Amino acid sequence: MKVKLASNYGFCFGVKRAIKIAQDYKDSATMGPLIHNQDEINRLKNDFNVGLYTDLKEVKDKDTVIIRTHGIPKNDLKTLKERDAKVINATCPFVTTPQQIVKKMSKEGYSILIFGDKKHPEVKGVASYAQNPDDVHIILDINELKDINFKKNKIATVAQTTKKKEKYLEIINYLILRNKEIRVFNTICDATFENQDAARALSKEVDIMVVIGGKHSSNTKQLHAICLENCQDSYLIENETELDKQWFKNKNLCGITAGASTPDWIIQKVVKTIENI
Amino acid sequence: MKVKLASNYGFCFGVKRAIKIAQDYKDSATMGPLIHNQDEINRLKNDFNVGLYTDLKEVKDKDTVIIRTHGIPKNDLKTLKERDAKVINATCPFVTTPQQIVKKMSKEGYSILIFGDKKHPEVKGVASYAQNPDDVHIILDINELKDINFKKNKIATVAQTTKKKEKYLEIINYLILRNKEIRVFNTICDATFENQDAARALSKEVDIMVVIGGKHSSNTKQLHAICLENCQDSYLIENETELDKQWFKNKNLCGITAGASTPDWIIQKVVKTIENI
Repeated sequence: MKVKLASNYGFCFGVKRAIKIAQDYKDSATMGPLIHNQDEINRLKNDFNVGLYTDLKEVKDKDTVIIRTHGIPKNDLKTLKERDAKVINATCPFVTTPQQIVKKMSKEGYSILIFGDKKHPEVKGVASYAQNPDDVHIILDINELKDINFKKNKIATVAQTTKKKEKYLEIINYLILRNKEIRVFNTICDATFENQDAARALSKEVDIMVVIGGKHSSNTKQLHAICLENCQDSYLIENETELDKQWFKNKNLCGITAGASTPDWIIQKVVKTIENI
Repeated sequence: MKVKLASNYGFCFGVKRAIKIAQDYKDSATMGPLIHNQDEINRLKNDFNVGLYTDLKEVKDKDTVIIRTHGIPKNDLKTLKERDAKVINATCPFVTTPQQIVKKMSKEGYSILIFGDKKHPEVKGVASYAQNPDDVHIILDINELKDINFKKNKIATVAQTTKKKEKYLEIINYLILRNKEIRVFNTICDATFENQDAARALSKEVDIMVVIGGKHSSNTKQLHAICLENCQDSYLIENETELDKQWFKNKNLCGITAGASTPDWIIQKVVKTIENI
């Protein structure tokens, strides 16, 4: 079977970078799971002895602790450093940017608006960099703006890196009409959308489409749904053991894409298996 | 005939203020016509000896020169001051604001975008405050953005005070998606739109509507068009001599509004004449 990979798939820049950092620091531990893929976490443990902490209290003096791509709240970072741990910062540079923007804008006297999910670790981290916690507002929908009392009529805005631009613009437009100055920082990362665009394009030109990723991963399911729009024979699998030869009968070209938490070595195993069908 | 005035009509805050300033400085002259109404310019000349310069070269030492609401380019102001003229600044505060924003943002290293008409005196004045004239861009339409090469990917935006917010937002949204930081200043003044909204509301509740203003004034014609939508018997007049008693037959209530360059004393004459019909 002939195979064609999507022009963008799998890990984004920040995740690739974090995994490389983890591999460089054998015998370290990550603060929270590095990515949402147990196979990859097992590999890092088995091959590089990279462990996993789920709570700051577990960290001991002289431990080497890796901060994951989402970043962590400012005070947690401070606590880690006070505990005399060696801190390796694998926060994605696209997440460090909004952290630093919030810090600077808050210092310059702006009210802060974050478009994102207040329960998401990335957003918790970004929000923590504000000087005045009372004047940082986190929303997911324009309707939440009505209930907010900004302390200033100059507002700086950032967005969670994985959010949709259209909704961010809606929120900004609302603010512009009601305030003197809005300082808009475009902190949305294109990686998720580039994977989606590439899956959409590829699914139009192949006979069968295989999407690799966690069955409960929302971005993988989204990729699968996009592929199904253009290619009826689109299948979602977690690894090569789930492939069924029957799918490939009378097909010539198989397209492949993968969710943002799918490591390359799993993708390569799937590619090789399909090529041998 | 019973008369009802629109809740907003005629001069805006900035024009009222400029006329008051002109009256306070007898024997002065304005740099360009203070407003687009010859009757009012004649009144200022006859009652307060306020003259009119059309060119900087006409200004002599020790002259008292009034800057009109639109403001003037930075270098013209400098020339006036060098000529040892006494400069009275009647620039509308809502126009001084974008001038100062452009000055500050340009100094802080932002590219500047002005949404407005590059031939309009207000816009010429605002643009002149930029430190780097090569990086100030003036557009009326989003399509013009494609041809612009901003020197920075941080851009500060201001709008001509009389422009429509919807088009400003369109332009800003385009910029946000393509640049790291957009610093949006809402410099649009509501006065024009408040007169329009008030005319719309009033024209729905009266039997006849009289719009007072120049027959060639675009904002007066706009008011007339809005009134005609709701009240078939809407008339545009320049002063009370144009009123026709026939219009008021079998009518009970007459609504009145006026364009942004119509002085109050003309409006009062019209009101009195109609009340006596």
